[in-house]
Amino acid sequence: MKLLRYGEAGSEKTGLLDAAGRVRDLSAHVPDLSGAAVAIAALDRLRGLDPETLPLVEAPGRIGACLSRVPNFFCVGLNYARHAAETGAEPPKEPILFSKASSALSGPYDPVVIPRDSVKSDWEVELGVVIGRDTLYVSEAEALDHVAGYCVINDVSERAFQIERGGQWVKGKSAPTFGPTGPWLVTADEVADPQALGLSLALNGQTVQDSRTDDMIFSVAEIVSYMSRFMALQPGDIIATGTPSGVGMGMKPQRFLRPGDVMELTVEGLGTQRQDVVAAD
Amino acid sequence: MKLLRYGEAGSEKTGLLDAAGRVRDLSAHVPDLSGAAVAIAALDRLRGLDPETLPLVEAPGRIGACLSRVPNFFCVGLNYARHAAETGAEPPKEPILFSKASSALSGPYDPVVIPRDSVKSDWEVELGVVIGRDTLYVSEAEALDHVAGYCVINDVSERAFQIERGGQWVKGKSAPTFGPTGPWLVTADEVADPQALGLSLALNGQTVQDSRTDDMIFSVAEIVSYMSRFMALQPGDIIATGTPSGVGMGMKPQRFLRPGDVMELTVEGLGTQRQDVVAAD
Repeated sequence: MKLLRYGEAGSEKTGLLDAAGRVRDLSAHVPDLSGAAVAIAALDRLRGLDPETLPLVEAPGRIGACLSRVPNFFCVGLNYARHAAETGAEPPKEPILFSKASSALSGPYDPVVIPRDSVKSDWEVELGVVIGRDTLYVSEAEALDHVAGYCVINDVSERAFQIERGGQWVKGKSAPTFGPTGPWLVTADEVADPQALGLSLALNGQTVQDSRTDDMIFSVAEIVSYMSRFMALQPGDIIATGTPSGVGMGMKPQRFLRPGDVMELTVEGLGTQRQDVVAAD
Repeated sequence: MKLLRYGEAGSEKTGLLDAAGRVRDLSAHVPDLSGAAVAIAALDRLRGLDPETLPLVEAPGRIGACLSRVPNFFCVGLNYARHAAETGAEPPKEPILFSKASSALSGPYDPVVIPRDSVKSDWEVELGVVIGRDTLYVSEAEALDHVAGYCVINDVSERAFQIERGGQWVKGKSAPTFGPTGPWLVTADEVADPQALGLSLALNGQTVQDSRTDDMIFSVAEIVSYMSRFMALQPGDIIATGTPSGVGMGMKPQRFLRPGDVMELTVEGLGTQRQDVVAAD
């Protein structure tokens, strides 16, 4: 299934993409896509629905983030070898974990707002993993059974806030609109192998990131198992699994986002995002 | 007002402490203490209630965390000069921000579970700040107007996970039960000056942390204003504002938590927590 949220920000309804790519209204069956509503057992119940019986939404309008009120918005850093190299870092020996503020979540076509005082806002196309079960101390062999689905994420990052302001990365990862997520939550049964997906990002029509998830240093199964040794993951948690090479920080000269820029990003089978870059008020 | 949540984990009801220190059932007026329910406008509406008209709860039983489903569980690091010194770090020039997994939240008297493979679990008494308005780009002068209230937090920390496992601190801050919060959410009108509160922690009856919030490097107002330059804070977000000196990591020799230990911690006017330390299953 491809699940989505459509409508004005803050009052989205839930929808399901039918075989013809049209939006069907799912709100009679699930009020929102968050927490227990995206637990694997809840998704299994939705799978029994015939999309043709759901109301057709002729004009869905805006598409929101495919999840709301995420309990946690986790990220993995430096998880592609060539990206680690472009940042000047050694490939990590263990997954590097950090988080974004949950308020960074935004829709896949919403503008990305460069925060005040930003000079180094940057792009990062990523495979997003959505947790579907309570997850603590799970093995790598069991880990994918805890994944509800996958989505496209742009882990937008302010490099000066992230690296030059003392300490931890969350400061540069958390501005409003720094977490475009969606358009769809694609359930795990539709992703045969999360390590065999192409992903790419174009800036103003020019491809700058173009890689495959088999270049990850730590696989999705390794990441979920590893994280579950340190924390209890919950249904609706998002994990952005790292970005491949080609970010603005790694270019020579460096190239950061400016108002008027357009980002388009895709993960194979999970849909495409497009964001206009605008300045903060 | 002193607001609380009582009952079994996962099915707590909301309560209000009356003038005699007894729990009154608040669940007819507010279903849970999270998100919009702890916005300042919502709390102002509760303030019109006469506690004597609310049902008396003779045996509240377990007290849960004073908030649930927190959108974010933020923390400030090294925010007391003597604590920074005991860790061997320079006092920070700007607030150090990091986060705990929201699943770390637990009740003030729930046992603290040492995670598997932990050898360096440690205690940290902290003043917790609860956000009560959407907060972005607020000045220091306005910042306290965005605070709904305050609470006691034990920012339990696994130092090896935090520091020795590559990268960011979230890994050592996020295990289940690593965030005892409460017993009460004390509304801001009852805290005349958040920089004039004593706070202390005793391990097995011996005081190991004993300080005052006027020793903070960055005040609550500075922290809220500073954070709002990097992210949008939301009603129900928690900020743990840092711990004073006296943690186990700073002792010579170092002293970490063991099953059977008992922690008791207090912030002046905000109540007392008590946790038994137990091993993970």
